[in-house]
Amino acid sequence: MGMQAVTQAQVKKITGSDILEEQDMLATEEPLEIRLSYYTQAGYTAKSISVTMRTPGNDLELAKGFLYTEGIISSREDVTETRHASDTNGNVVYVTLAQGVMPDIVRLERNFYTTSSCGVCGKASIEAVRTACNILDTKDHIEIPHSTIYTLPATLRAQQSVFEHTGGLHGCAIFDTTGNLVMTREDVGRHNALDKLIGAAIDNGLLPLNDHILLLSGRASFELVQKAAMAGIKVIAAVGAPSSLAVQLADEWGMTLVGFLRGERFNIYTGAQRIVI
Amino acid sequence: MGMQAVTQAQVKKITGSDILEEQDMLATEEPLEIRLSYYTQAGYTAKSISVTMRTPGNDLELAKGFLYTEGIISSREDVTETRHASDTNGNVVYVTLAQGVMPDIVRLERNFYTTSSCGVCGKASIEAVRTACNILDTKDHIEIPHSTIYTLPATLRAQQSVFEHTGGLHGCAIFDTTGNLVMTREDVGRHNALDKLIGAAIDNGLLPLNDHILLLSGRASFELVQKAAMAGIKVIAAVGAPSSLAVQLADEWGMTLVGFLRGERFNIYTGAQRIVI
Repeated sequence: MGMQAVTQAQVKKITGSDILEEQDMLATEEPLEIRLSYYTQAGYTAKSISVTMRTPGNDLELAKGFLYTEGIISSREDVTETRHASDTNGNVVYVTLAQGVMPDIVRLERNFYTTSSCGVCGKASIEAVRTACNILDTKDHIEIPHSTIYTLPATLRAQQSVFEHTGGLHGCAIFDTTGNLVMTREDVGRHNALDKLIGAAIDNGLLPLNDHILLLSGRASFELVQKAAMAGIKVIAAVGAPSSLAVQLADEWGMTLVGFLRGERFNIYTGAQRIVI
Repeated sequence: MGMQAVTQAQVKKITGSDILEEQDMLATEEPLEIRLSYYTQAGYTAKSISVTMRTPGNDLELAKGFLYTEGIISSREDVTETRHASDTNGNVVYVTLAQGVMPDIVRLERNFYTTSSCGVCGKASIEAVRTACNILDTKDHIEIPHSTIYTLPATLRAQQSVFEHTGGLHGCAIFDTTGNLVMTREDVGRHNALDKLIGAAIDNGLLPLNDHILLLSGRASFELVQKAAMAGIKVIAAVGAPSSLAVQLADEWGMTLVGFLRGERFNIYTGAQRIVI
């Protein structure tokens, strides 16, 4: 149980009636706890705010991306330090907020998408994103040739090294509007992969990502579109299917959502004006 | 935004340079809030304990399966009533516990896998399952021919109606040891699909499921193996890859874990003695 992205395992491979025993690679899954250190009248205090099952690697980016997409921080400057706890085998990260930054701990402790106003529904969930979202209103004039969209999955696959070995990871990537890969991240949890990517974008001063394309190796859920919206992303292309609420959120926020991107085929669900055919 | 498992959407289908505009089906994703009503000295009190993004349908099973796999209830008799709230468009479920059943609300409010003892690691996560798990120690003498394993995915696919239309759902199913399908459930969230399945098994008096095979349409994560363990399942076959912690948990609990089940091929990660070749 190391802190590697890949774990060795002994496996019996069955084909027809043949058995072959050999070493194989698994995507590592381990919990990561995020502890938030923030300033109060009594000085700095620390609180555990999240445990997620993730693939080790890029943990500090994951923590920052998570805090950003949850609306707790809104810029690089809101964080003064991010580090692994020294005594917990790499599975605990401390994030220290700048003195002026006060997290809404009560909201954090409740579930993000619960609102008391209208009960619980997709509409309330979308409304909660609107409340938390600070840079979604960024403008863009993106136009992307459909032929550029076709090239994205192959470019991502060429980079997804761990996925190649294990088949167990979700990948995501940002591209510029001409289809050049900017960066990619992968994880057993697709929300973690995207948080890592957004955390890296924060570190590199790339936010808002309103002139980039986000590629998802799997399906597009509400949660992924929400995280993308928080980072200012206007164009999402998913290899898999989108959910109803993902489409609804993308539509409401004027985002372009492409799904079932395979070979020379894809579906446009919302924001077709940005795709030039 | 209906409470149907499938939502209609207008979509532009791009193939090469051709555009075809047509109606298509999306897997519906909507939040479900679970409110727990339990007896205290002051009488019954209700508390919201969870919001999950799910595909509408089988909501009451989902709630019961969730409470069971979280260790809050341990039998059908622990629940006296499960119903939709009347005023919240189908997205809120109340579960009323019998008078003697006292949920550990403090544990519920913290993250399930966090333990204070050794920091956070996969070992602590597995230990938390051990603590919560009441029927894992059930015995079994299952022997399954490898040829039976090969038949499972096709049988599940024939039942996954919504998946066929949308490509957006995870499916899971239980089979008897001769490969007959017992029941299947599907959802945008794979943990929800399994909670629905286990909730249905509770309703039908099938627990513990120690003489059944669980089939997962996707990957096998720690969380899914944990839920299966709670229901007494001894044999899991996944179409996708397992994670390192999924294999570790299955190994520690003497479960059989099969992955990459495709055509006449699969890998055995743990518990090979139950597969007869």
